[in-house]
Amino acid sequence: MRRVAIIGASGFTGLELVKILIGHPGFEITYVATSEGETSLTALHPSLTDVFDAPVYKADAGSIAEAAELAFLALPHKASMGFAKELLEKGVKVVDLSADYRLELETYEKHYCPHEDKAHIAEAVYGLPELYREAICKTNLVANPGCYPTAALLGLLPFTRYIDERFPVFIDAKSGVSGAGKKCSHNTHFVTINENIFPYNPLVHRHQPEIAEKLRMQSGKNFDVNFVPHLIPVTRGEMIDTYLLLKEEIDPMAVLRDFYEEAPFVRLFDKPVDIKSPSGTNFCDIFAKRVGQKLYINSAIDNILRGASSQAVVNANLMCGYAEGLGIPTIAYVP
Amino acid sequence: MRRVAIIGASGFTGLELVKILIGHPGFEITYVATSEGETSLTALHPSLTDVFDAPVYKADAGSIAEAAELAFLALPHKASMGFAKELLEKGVKVVDLSADYRLELETYEKHYCPHEDKAHIAEAVYGLPELYREAICKTNLVANPGCYPTAALLGLLPFTRYIDERFPVFIDAKSGVSGAGKKCSHNTHFVTINENIFPYNPLVHRHQPEIAEKLRMQSGKNFDVNFVPHLIPVTRGEMIDTYLLLKEEIDPMAVLRDFYEEAPFVRLFDKPVDIKSPSGTNFCDIFAKRVGQKLYINSAIDNILRGASSQAVVNANLMCGYAEGLGIPTIAYVP
Amino acid sequence: MRRVAIIGASGFTGLELVKILIGHPGFEITYVATSEGETSLTALHPSLTDVFDAPVYKADAGSIAEAAELAFLALPHKASMGFAKELLEKGVKVVDLSADYRLELETYEKHYCPHEDKAHIAEAVYGLPELYREAICKTNLVANPGCYPTAALLGLLPFTRYIDERFPVFIDAKSGVSGAGKKCSHNTHFVTINENIFPYNPLVHRHQPEIAEKLRMQSGKNFDVNFVPHLIPVTRGEMIDTYLLLKEEIDPMAVLRDFYEEAPFVRLFDKPVDIKSPSGTNFCDIFAKRVGQKLYINSAIDNILRGASSQAVVNANLMCGYAEGLGIPTIAYVP
Amino acid sequence: MRRVAIIGASGFTGLELVKILIGHPGFEITYVATSEGETSLTALHPSLTDVFDAPVYKADAGSIAEAAELAFLALPHKASMGFAKELLEKGVKVVDLSADYRLELETYEKHYCPHEDKAHIAEAVYGLPELYREAICKTNLVANPGCYPTAALLGLLPFTRYIDERFPVFIDAKSGVSGAGKKCSHNTHFVTINENIFPYNPLVHRHQPEIAEKLRMQSGKNFDVNFVPHLIPVTRGEMIDTYLLLKEEIDPMAVLRDFYEEAPFVRLFDKPVDIKSPSGTNFCDIFAKRVGQKLYINSAIDNILRGASSQAVVNANLMCGYAEGLGIPTIAYVP
Repeated sequence: MRRVAIIGASGFTGLELVKILIGHPGFEITYVATSEGETSLTALHPSLTDVFDAPVYKADAGSIAEAAELAFLALPHKASMGFAKELLEKGVKVVDLSADYRLELETYEKHYCPHEDKAHIAEAVYGLPELYREAICKTNLVANPGCYPTAALLGLLPFTRYIDERFPVFIDAKSGVSGAGKKCSHNTHFVTINENIFPYNPLVHRHQPEIAEKLRMQSGKNFDVNFVPHLIPVTRGEMIDTYLLLKEEIDPMAVLRDFYEEAPFVRLFDKPVDIKSPSGTNFCDIFAKRVGQKLYINSAIDNILRGASSQAVVNANLMCGYAEGLGIPTIAYVP
Repeated sequence: MRRVAIIGASGFTGLELVKILIGHPGFEITYVATSEGETSLTALHPSLTDVFDAPVYKADAGSIAEAAELAFLALPHKASMGFAKELLEKGVKVVDLSADYRLELETYEKHYCPHEDKAHIAEAVYGLPELYREAICKTNLVANPGCYPTAALLGLLPFTRYIDERFPVFIDAKSGVSGAGKKCSHNTHFVTINENIFPYNPLVHRHQPEIAEKLRMQSGKNFDVNFVPHLIPVTRGEMIDTYLLLKEEIDPMAVLRDFYEEAPFVRLFDKPVDIKSPSGTNFCDIFAKRVGQKLYINSAIDNILRGASSQAVVNANLMCGYAEGLGIPTIAYVP
Repeated sequence: MRRVAIIGASGFTGLELVKILIGHPGFEITYVATSEGETSLTALHPSLTDVFDAPVYKADAGSIAEAAELAFLALPHKASMGFAKELLEKGVKVVDLSADYRLELETYEKHYCPHEDKAHIAEAVYGLPELYREAICKTNLVANPGCYPTAALLGLLPFTRYIDERFPVFIDAKSGVSGAGKKCSHNTHFVTINENIFPYNPLVHRHQPEIAEKLRMQSGKNFDVNFVPHLIPVTRGEMIDTYLLLKEEIDPMAVLRDFYEEAPFVRLFDKPVDIKSPSGTNFCDIFAKRVGQKLYINSAIDNILRGASSQAVVNANLMCGYAEGLGIPTIAYVP
Repeated sequence: MRRVAIIGASGFTGLELVKILIGHPGFEITYVATSEGETSLTALHPSLTDVFDAPVYKADAGSIAEAAELAFLALPHKASMGFAKELLEKGVKVVDLSADYRLELETYEKHYCPHEDKAHIAEAVYGLPELYREAICKTNLVANPGCYPTAALLGLLPFTRYIDERFPVFIDAKSGVSGAGKKCSHNTHFVTINENIFPYNPLVHRHQPEIAEKLRMQSGKNFDVNFVPHLIPVTRGEMIDTYLLLKEEIDPMAVLRDFYEEAPFVRLFDKPVDIKSPSGTNFCDIFAKRVGQKLYINSAIDNILRGASSQAVVNANLMCGYAEGLGIPTIAYVP
C-alpha cells in the first residue's frame, strides 16, 4: 500500500479523490489537508459519515512529505505550484489537478499568471494516459488535464492526421455546475442556472490554448481551435461537440476503433452519447459521424472524475507501477 | 393612474412587482429604489430589456413621498420599518412585504428583533384579503403575509371551527429556492439542492407563530401549530400539507366551497394539487380529504406571487379602491 | 374582435395559443377542437380552471368555418394539410403550426411524406415576420416556422451577405423537453433526460433543410447547413449556437443592430444570451462575436412561443391588419 | 462464489442489482432474464458497455434452478409469486422485490389481488434486517420491503413503545421519479414533474397497510398510520417526515442511538437529513426532534437501493451466511 496525501479536500474534486482512494487496493490515505485545516473529512463532507473519516490539517509541505510518498493537489492554480515545488524537492510524487503545469511556460503566463516554479515545468507530464502513458509511468510530476481538454482531446486526437488544418475546429462544450466549483456565485445559484443554459467566455476560455497545444504536440500541426463552453442545469457531466473539415472521406468509427483498440477507459458508440452513461466513472464515451468532408465528434465524460479525480488516480496508478485501472470506478450513476 | 414606488427592486419579489405593475391599468411606477441605487432596472434584470426600464435610486423617503402615493417595500425585515414609519408620516400608503408589521409586538420581538416603529403596529392590517378584505380597504399600512402563512392559512381558515384544538396541527411545507432569496449561499448553490430535498429550521421557523397568531385572531382559539419547511429543487412554487384532527366528520370540500364562495383567487380541486398549476398566478389551489376524524389539507401557491408580490398588488388595489383582481396575473407558467 | 379557432388544443402549443388569445384585445376564441373532442379546455389543462373554459369539439372543417374567420392549426404534419385545404376553400384564414406548408414541394416530400394539398403550397407564406412581414399581411395561409429554424434563421439572416458559403455552417442547438411534445416516450421520461443532455438525429434533422431553404430564398446563395440538435433538461426554451466563416471582418453587433433596427421582437445583447430571459415571451435574443473571419452567433427563444404559438399570433395579427405586437407576451418567466 | 439469477433485469431495480452484484465478492451472476428475453444486458443498459454483459433470457424457472442457487425477483407483483413458488419447490432461495410476500394474506388480497401461492406466505420473512435479521438468516424466501415502508419503519420502530397510539401517526413522504418505474406515463413525463411536486394516492397508498402491519408485529400495538406520498423532481432518493404524539418526553436521539447501536446501515444525524447523502448507498439516514410530546422523525434513503436492490443483496448475504455488509455500496453519489 502506497501512502498518499490529498491537499485541497474541501472541494468537489477533493471529495471524489477521497471516494476513490478509500476503496483503492493500492493506496492508503495518510494525510488530508485544506488551506485552512482544523476540521475533519466528515465535517466537510457529511455523506462520508460512518464510511471514512480523517483529520484535516492546514496544508504543510513538510508534514505531507513525512506522511506520504505521493500527493494529489486539488488546489486552485497558482496555489498549487508552491506546494508542488516543495514536495518534489522533498521526493514526493505529485499529481497536480490545477492548470499550473499543463502548459508551456509562455502560454501559461499569457492565460494565467507569472509562473513560480519554472524549474519543474519541463519534467511535468500531461496526464492524459491515452496520449502519454509511457511518460506518465516514469515521471514524478503529472499535470492532470482540464475537464474540457480531456473530453475534447480524446475526441480529436484520433483524427489529427485527417483534419484539414486550413479550416477552424469548432468546439461547443456543455458542462454541469460542479465544474464551477463549490464556491457560491451568481452563476451557481440554483435560480440562475435551473431551467437555463448559457455560454460563458466564448472563444476566450483558458482551456482553448490547452487543447490547441496538445494537438500540436501530438501531430506537429497547428489547428485553429475555437472553444465555446456552456453551463447546463445538471450537477455532473460534460459533453463536447466538435465540428471540423477533413482532408479525406474516412470512416470515423473505424478510425476511433483503431486508435483506441487498447484503451480501457474509452468507449465507442455507434450512436450519439449522453453525459449520464459515463457519469460516476472514468470512461470517456465517443461517437463520430461524417457527412462529406465534415466531421462531427460527440464525446462525454464525468467532469469531476475523468475530467479530474479518477484520471488523477489513473495517473497515480501508472506513476506507482500499478495497473492503469486499479481501483478506478466503472459503474455509472445510472439511473 | 396612481403613482407607486418600489423599494427593494433588486430581488425576486421586487422583479415580480415590476412585472405586474408595468401592465397594470391602475398603477404607474414612478420611483424605483434599492439600498444602493445608481443603476437601472434592466441592469438589475436583463430580462426586462426592451420591455421596461427606469433609473434605480438609493432609497430615500423624501423622494419616495414626492414621487408616489403608495410604496411597496420589498426589503428585509428591520430595514422595512424605518422606511414605513417615515412614509406613513408623509402620507404615503405602504404595502410592506417584510415581516415587520405582521405580528403582535411581543411575538415579533421574540422571533425577530426589537421593533422601532411601535406606533404603527396597531394600524397595520394583515394583508390576506380572504381574511381582512374590508380592513385592507381602509388602511394605509398593509403587512403582506409570509409565503408559508399565506398557503397554510388559506388551507386552515375554513376549518378552524371544526378542528380539535387539543391535538396538534402538523404542517409539512415545501418551497422552491426563490424563497431563499437572490443571495448566494450553501443552500442555494445548485449542487446543494439539485437532486435533493431537505427540511430546515424544523419546528422553529418564524412563520410558525405567524400562522398560529392569525388562526387565533380569526377563531378565538389557540391551535398548536407545528411547522416543518423543506427546500425543494424547483425555482418557484410552494406546497403546504397539513394534518390535523377534527371534532366532527365534515365534508371538507363542501366546507371549502362554502368558505370560498366569493374568493376570486382561491381555486378548489377534487384531487391533489400541484405547485405548477398556480405558478405565475395569484391563485391558491386547495384540495382536502377526510378519513374518519383526520383531515388532510393540500394547498399550493406561487411563493413569490401569491406568497409575496401579486398579493401585495391585490392589497394595493383594495387600498386604492380598485377591484381586487385588477391587473393581477391568472395565467399559469404551464407547461 | 375577430373570431378564431384553435385546432389541436390538447398539446403544449395549443395551450400556449389559448393562454395568449384569452387576453388578446383583437381575437376571441370561438371554437376549440382536438382530433378526439368531447372534453373541455379545463379538463385538458387544469391550470386554466377559473380562468377560461370552452367545450372542445372533434375537429370539423365545416364547424370551424361557421365559428371563425381564422384558424390556428396546432396539429402534427400531414394531419394539418387536410384541414388547411378545406378551411382555405371555405374562406377561413389559416395559421398552420405544422411543417406542411413550410417547404418547397420537393423538399417537403423528401423529408416528410407525399403532399396532399399541392394547390396551396404556392400561396403559403413562411411566417417569420422579420423576413416576410409584407407577404404575411396579404396572405390567407401562413406556414408557421419550426422552433429551431426560427432561432437559427434570426441569427443567420443578417449575415448571409458576409458568409463564406464555401465553408459549412455548423449549428449546435439545444432544446427544452416541451419541444418533444406531450406524448410520453423514452426520451421524455424524467429519468432519461434529468441530469442529462444528448444529441439526436445529428446532421439529419428535418429542420436542417428548412433552414437551408430559407437562407437560399433570402440571399440567393446555397449554404451548407449542418444541424445537430440536443435535448436538455429544461421544460421550455431553446438555444442556437452557430459557427461559420466570413468573407470579411465585419462588426457583427453592428450588422445585427442595423438589420433589426425596426424589429420589435428581436433583442440584441453585448454578451452571451441565456434561454431563461426570453422564456415566456415572443423575443428572440441574439449575441454574436467575431474572431478573425470566424463568426459565432448565439440566439435564444422560448421554443413553444417564439418557436410556435406567440409567433403564430403575431402572424395572425399581421394577417388581420392588427399591430404586430398586439397582445403578444413580452414579460419573461424570470426568475 | 454463490451463483445467483436476476429475474426482471430491464427495470431500474434490475439494473441496480446488476451494478452491485458484478463487484460482489460472494456472488456470481449466472443467469439474467426478463419477461421477454432475447436481448443482452448492455442492450438494455448501455451504461454497462465494456463493464459487464450477459445474455438476457426469457425467464424460465427450470433454467433458473439449473443456473443459480438464489434468485432475485425484480418483477411486478402477481408476476412474482408464480416464479417464487416454482423456484422454492426446486430448492432455489428467493429474494422477492415485489409486494407478493410482504403482507398477511388478508391484507394482501385486499390491497393487491388474489394470492396464488398461499403455501409459502408463512415462511416468507420480511426483509428488513434491522427487524428480522435472525429470521432472514434462516429462511429461503425473503419478501423485500417496499421503499416507503423501509424508510418509514426505520424511523418509527425505535419509538413504538413511546408512541401514544390513541392518536394518528402522519407520514408525509417524498419520492424521486425512479420509484415510478421505467414505464412512460403522464406522471413520469419530464414536463409534468419538472419544476413541480404533487401528492398522489393520499391516505390510500398500498404502502400504508404494510407500514401498519409491521409496526403491529413488532410492538403488538395497532397504530393509526396515515400516509401521503409525493412525487418530487429528482431521479433517486426518498424522504419520510413523520409526525406523531408521544406518551412521555423522551430524548429521541438517545432512543435512536440505543436502538441502532449495532446497525451498520443506519446513520444518525443531529440535524435534518437530506436525500442526497444516502443516495447511491444502502444507508438510511435518520434525525428526530421532540417538542413537548410531539415527535418529528426525518429519514432518508436511496429508494432503489435501500428501498429495493441493495437491501435485497443484504438479505441475500444473510441468507447465504455472508457478512451483512459484504459488497454493499456505502459511497454516496455526492456531489
